[in-house]
Amino acid sequence: MDRRSFLRTTALGGSAAAASTLAAPAYASGKVKLTMVTSWGRGLAGVFDAAQHSADAINAMSDGTLEVEIKAAGELVGAFEVFDAVTSGQADMYHAADYYFTGQHPGYQYFTAAPFGMTPQELMNWYLHGEGSAFHNELGEIFGLKPFLAGNTGPQAGGWFKKEINGPEDFNGLKFRMPGMGGKALGKLGASVQNLPGSEVYQALASGAIDGTEWIGPWADEKAGFQEITKFYYTSGFHEPGAALTLATNLEVFEGLSAAHQKIIETAAGETHQWSLAQFMNNNGAALQRLQAGGVKTLEFPDSVWDAFGKASKETLDEYMDDELFAKIRASVEKSMKASSSWIKKSAGAYSAQRDRVMG
Amino acid sequence: MDRRSFLRTTALGGSAAAASTLAAPAYASGKVKLTMVTSWGRGLAGVFDAAQHSADAINAMSDGTLEVEIKAAGELVGAFEVFDAVTSGQADMYHAADYYFTGQHPGYQYFTAAPFGMTPQELMNWYLHGEGSAFHNELGEIFGLKPFLAGNTGPQAGGWFKKEINGPEDFNGLKFRMPGMGGKALGKLGASVQNLPGSEVYQALASGAIDGTEWIGPWADEKAGFQEITKFYYTSGFHEPGAALTLATNLEVFEGLSAAHQKIIETAAGETHQWSLAQFMNNNGAALQRLQAGGVKTLEFPDSVWDAFGKASKETLDEYMDDELFAKIRASVEKSMKASSSWIKKSAGAYSAQRDRVMG
Repeated sequence: MDRRSFLRTTALGGSAAAASTLAAPAYASGKVKLTMVTSWGRGLAGVFDAAQHSADAINAMSDGTLEVEIKAAGELVGAFEVFDAVTSGQADMYHAADYYFTGQHPGYQYFTAAPFGMTPQELMNWYLHGEGSAFHNELGEIFGLKPFLAGNTGPQAGGWFKKEINGPEDFNGLKFRMPGMGGKALGKLGASVQNLPGSEVYQALASGAIDGTEWIGPWADEKAGFQEITKFYYTSGFHEPGAALTLATNLEVFEGLSAAHQKIIETAAGETHQWSLAQFMNNNGAALQRLQAGGVKTLEFPDSVWDAFGKASKETLDEYMDDELFAKIRASVEKSMKASSSWIKKSAGAYSAQRDRVMG
Repeated sequence: MDRRSFLRTTALGGSAAAASTLAAPAYASGKVKLTMVTSWGRGLAGVFDAAQHSADAINAMSDGTLEVEIKAAGELVGAFEVFDAVTSGQADMYHAADYYFTGQHPGYQYFTAAPFGMTPQELMNWYLHGEGSAFHNELGEIFGLKPFLAGNTGPQAGGWFKKEINGPEDFNGLKFRMPGMGGKALGKLGASVQNLPGSEVYQALASGAIDGTEWIGPWADEKAGFQEITKFYYTSGFHEPGAALTLATNLEVFEGLSAAHQKIIETAAGETHQWSLAQFMNNNGAALQRLQAGGVKTLEFPDSVWDAFGKASKETLDEYMDDELFAKIRASVEKSMKASSSWIKKSAGAYSAQRDRVMG
């Protein structure tokens, strides 16, 4: 069966029903009120910040004619229920990481981060000046959503381990927390992959229920406190080389807005992507220095482990290739990434290496 | 004499006069009309695109209540006269590269790019989450400007040469086009540095009036046609590792706008920075592949040349250290850059190297 046609039919059915019977934005005295549900606990560093930043910009730029009210995870719906809440019209927009919704469509993996996929700059090249946003919209149309990227954690760290990793065999039987397709790939190395919610990770690592965990990067990892439990920190990882966040509005709600309000949402989201990425990257630099000063040992996986990550990632992605749209998105990503990286390596890459060497 | 106090006094004097006797934005039927002067020829790829993109976003988001009209270089004032035009109130805003205005204050170098300075991501970390925008505003207050970064060419290429460069001695007597502090540094290696306007560079290189030139990067360089003259292309350079563009509004004009209009300009500028950087980086990747297919040889300077670049850059920057604000900005940049690069190297840097190795 053609999964895509099926989804298009049922999702649009749901959305049409929603428009007549459910939410629809509240119009009062010339104002449009929009409810934004998020996958984030209220105040969660970085990710809730990005949702708040985009909402604040929308409210300020529209002079209050567009009023976004944020709901943290659990306040209206649960963290992973935001997608369905917006497609059904229960809420007007969500802020989340789209790879939470690979159950709805595996192509969503590419709008957060795929194993061995794009860095944030490569993603922006593809999204804004390649085919990226068109594919994001194509997915959105299946489900009745108008999406924009609106945040990015930057490259995620390889994670915290109780002992050093010397070869791929060290993952055999290792109880490790890693969600999404990265976790699926790690499972192919024999790891027992857990997908714990963020609130449970610290206790699980402290009690020995898991042997290791990836989380986000130095800033968020330090806040979580993993350095209190172990000092082995692998800074580079294969699983999320630049994890983007999405602000998606119910498509019928979006199409009912004025052109000015539509542009305000689009521009706020874009500016938030840059602001959020810089927040993570800036704070990661400072946190890394603190962690190192506190005795954390930063490590890189050996080549044999990266080779195993590569093989497992390719096998994992290959498992979704019977979905036509996934295959088209993957081909587009890999072609754009190759062109982008050729210049990045020869310009910023070569420059940074020489600057480090010359300036110390 | 305290240059800064002097400038503050005279600039504010000029600005106050401007407010009462000159331009001031045109208010008609609830609309505010703003004239944007730019340093770019109409339609100039990348840089004029960024000015246009920000103006379009402002006009669309404000629903036409804020109407920005763009003037290309020469239409109202010349390319390098835009700064004085806006500080004096002759025009309302400019889009330019702030290192054109190091004659007004050397600190402006850091808001485009300094030799051996920040990559675009490092710049955004500092600008949005460190002290960068505060320093940009401090410079702006001296001259009566409200600045926002609004574009970025990415790391600029080392440039086009008629023959290979094997050591720093090959720059001795070389007639080379490079503007700004990068050019000053190159002069210390014995180069005869020229600062030709863009429109004259191709002819100068073709006729032998110059032996080489830097320009921007593969996309813009290919459009300029340098590959028709020589095939030696150094892809990485020390002089502008991420050249930002600025949208600056006359400070009194800006302060006279509503809070919503102010936020619209700020957000449009920020989103334009990301959009513009991705445009250059995306198009550079594709252009590099075309140039290589057309027989262009991409090269890296040897370590001895990078060492000489480093020494000359430090000497050049040191010459401005008697300016207190320049010294403060430089210290802030170098501290932030060190923290940012420590994480970037251990995350994106290590990841990209492994991805290239594993995936080919």
